[in-house]
Amino acid sequence: MANHEAIQAATKYIDSNTNRFQEELFQYLRIASISAQTDHSRDIQAAAEWTKSRCNAAGLSAEIVQTPGWPVVLAEGPQQPDRPTILIYGHYDVQPEGETALWKTGPFEPTVRDGKITCRGAADDKGQLFCAIVAAEAWMKTAGSLPVNFKMCIEGEEEIGSPHLAAAVEMHKERLACDYIVIHDTAQFGDDAPAITTATKGLVYKEIIIRGPGKDLHSGSFGGTVANPANELAALIATLKDEKGKVQIPGFYDNVVEMSAAELEMMRSLPFDEAAYLKDVGSPMLHVEEGYSSLHARWARPTLDVNGIFGGYMKEGASTIIPSFAGAKISMRLVPNQTADEIDRLFDETVRARVPKTVKLEIKSHAHCDPYLADLESSGMRAAQQALELGFGKAPFMIREGGSLPILPMFKSILSADSLLIGFCQPNCNAHSPNEFLHLRDFEGGMKTSAALMGLLSA
Amino acid sequence: MANHEAIQAATKYIDSNTNRFQEELFQYLRIASISAQTDHSRDIQAAAEWTKSRCNAAGLSAEIVQTPGWPVVLAEGPQQPDRPTILIYGHYDVQPEGETALWKTGPFEPTVRDGKITCRGAADDKGQLFCAIVAAEAWMKTAGSLPVNFKMCIEGEEEIGSPHLAAAVEMHKERLACDYIVIHDTAQFGDDAPAITTATKGLVYKEIIIRGPGKDLHSGSFGGTVANPANELAALIATLKDEKGKVQIPGFYDNVVEMSAAELEMMRSLPFDEAAYLKDVGSPMLHVEEGYSSLHARWARPTLDVNGIFGGYMKEGASTIIPSFAGAKISMRLVPNQTADEIDRLFDETVRARVPKTVKLEIKSHAHCDPYLADLESSGMRAAQQALELGFGKAPFMIREGGSLPILPMFKSILSADSLLIGFCQPNCNAHSPNEFLHLRDFEGGMKTSAALMGLLSA
Repeated sequence: MANHEAIQAATKYIDSNTNRFQEELFQYLRIASISAQTDHSRDIQAAAEWTKSRCNAAGLSAEIVQTPGWPVVLAEGPQQPDRPTILIYGHYDVQPEGETALWKTGPFEPTVRDGKITCRGAADDKGQLFCAIVAAEAWMKTAGSLPVNFKMCIEGEEEIGSPHLAAAVEMHKERLACDYIVIHDTAQFGDDAPAITTATKGLVYKEIIIRGPGKDLHSGSFGGTVANPANELAALIATLKDEKGKVQIPGFYDNVVEMSAAELEMMRSLPFDEAAYLKDVGSPMLHVEEGYSSLHARWARPTLDVNGIFGGYMKEGASTIIPSFAGAKISMRLVPNQTADEIDRLFDETVRARVPKTVKLEIKSHAHCDPYLADLESSGMRAAQQALELGFGKAPFMIREGGSLPILPMFKSILSADSLLIGFCQPNCNAHSPNEFLHLRDFEGGMKTSAALMGLLSA
Repeated sequence: MANHEAIQAATKYIDSNTNRFQEELFQYLRIASISAQTDHSRDIQAAAEWTKSRCNAAGLSAEIVQTPGWPVVLAEGPQQPDRPTILIYGHYDVQPEGETALWKTGPFEPTVRDGKITCRGAADDKGQLFCAIVAAEAWMKTAGSLPVNFKMCIEGEEEIGSPHLAAAVEMHKERLACDYIVIHDTAQFGDDAPAITTATKGLVYKEIIIRGPGKDLHSGSFGGTVANPANELAALIATLKDEKGKVQIPGFYDNVVEMSAAELEMMRSLPFDEAAYLKDVGSPMLHVEEGYSSLHARWARPTLDVNGIFGGYMKEGASTIIPSFAGAKISMRLVPNQTADEIDRLFDETVRARVPKTVKLEIKSHAHCDPYLADLESSGMRAAQQALELGFGKAPFMIREGGSLPILPMFKSILSADSLLIGFCQPNCNAHSPNEFLHLRDFEGGMKTSAALMGLLSA
């Protein structure tokens, strides 16, 4: 109960200082720390400095660590040997603003409109990671200490694929050792529907190129005598998935683990509006792997999609050629316990076996990432659920994510720790689009959840 | 026999004046009459004027007829009511020069090298059509008259698809009435292998676009719930042709007429070097419709080829999207007695029936042309064979062409006359490439053949 009171005190502190926190967040958001654009390098440096200073002001000890790219900010509270340790992961860099004309107010001019903080970075991820800094301050100012060993790792390259994060984590492995990584960089399930994301999919992204004639040929003079690379490519792709949406690569499903009965039940209880979803995607109708619901397929079934296809004459009008080559980018999203290495190998073996000798096959590899599934029964997961219930007044849903987060298997592999994905923004928050926003109520709920999580984890 | 002597006299005249004819042709070739480029409009006009003047000098009566595009030159000899009538078709326009750096001498500087007249237009078509003007002159200067009613229709838009020719022919239908159209704009079978081209393929060129989501979707967040237009496109294309090279469109082969026993025998007697052909195309191996030889397939079997395919992310690297749409350009080459109208309809019906309801299909139509097959037993065909034997000292091969010539069914339809395709250049003459050439010996053989043809047709 002492702990419960301490959480209440921290929560009260947050309530009393919300306006100040919002003003501070606005300072943070005004820094256009676009990692993709080198002419924003000063902004990147400024955002790293701001992060470090604000962590120090909260009572933490922060420093900027250089990498071959943009720097990482590492921070930690006082060491307390008997307490559990959490590592907050976040990123101070942001996406480019995109089409400026579509922003209702400046992309780096934070504005509150309709109860929403609108600005690039409001949701992804400054507005969310700031909640953890506030939470640390709230404990320091009310209890005089932190209930857990508290660490932060805030990078500046998330929006460009975190090219140097793994090396930095490996290098600072001891210093970053923890029981849980806590990440405030995902979304709730929807309005008034807080959520914990428990799994992300893996990814194997391949490119296949089929080569035939040495040059584009006249389709009249040469037609009927050579295999057409574009026809052969289509024939090959057609073998990879059947009409029911089942991937036709031998062994592809061998290691797929079905969701537990509890998770299935939770999924079925979700207020998922399929008609609204269909309207949003704009297809004539949905097409889901036979035997599964659309939510189930998005969350827990592996997929195979052509991401791009090209070859021959692709411009306006007509050109009567047999193309010299044709290619396709094909990616597969993986679920536990598929591994990227194994699926990569199976894909290569399968396409090699299916390409006729009348053409040549070239295979390139692009992204490669394992799926991730957290332990749903861990004490950290229970604490996260309770924290969200305290912060938002409602028990969270446990959801999965169809996208891939390479940092999760990376953290698991280097730090041997599970990640708790506790996100506060809305799924339609325009994270990479104009008019990105974070609801004020979700900002407040986020700060309180983050503070509560510390207290609950120490219990 | 009187006729035989007259042909010999005309032939002798040609032999005696070959140097002058070559110099005249060089004048013609120096005019850069590139129909595709409007900044060459003066050259186009100059080439039309040159054609007209040279026809008049040969004893014909020529005039320039305007069209909405580049003009047509019409010429004719004296009317002789009881004689057969031939219409020479040719074109005074040429292809652009292409990569100037690849030309050994200037593209519009005619040069004789290794016994070849090298220049843009030497083969296609100035050097060939000029043979018919020379032939008329030879008859006028030796016999004092022409043995046939002789007409010429020389257009300036062949290299841009003859957009105004059909209307001009329709408008001057009575004036152009003839028993045969004679065209010197094809190739021999090879060195020392004169040939008559007896058939060309038809063409139906379609474009299909498969549309799915309203916009490109994140392949993680939405994968597994919507049909992927690129996958569906590949699946659809894969149904159109089987592994044996057979087109899988119901009814596609219904009206295909096999080659006659005589034509098959002739084809099998041809010195076709399949290894050299394969080396030229550069594919790992040939792939021919089951049951046919490669030459047979090129000449007399209908084909289906993807000419271009596109959709989604087509640039370097990876982008994880489900494309909003994907499309393909697909063309079919037709043989007698398939018709473009029927195959077009069958194609549309087939793809419409095979596209699932999870996506939308859009079909566009591009080129549309019927196949053409001349009467192999006509008196004109016999005269053409004898004329080539006289001009080249060797009986010609009867060959087919895999490409399409829309003007042939057009002439047949408007003028109700067969075309005699008597070409003098070599198949590797670089017609649309740098260093286009016409062998001097083929130029001489061509002039003599053209002169002999007139005499033989009147016999």
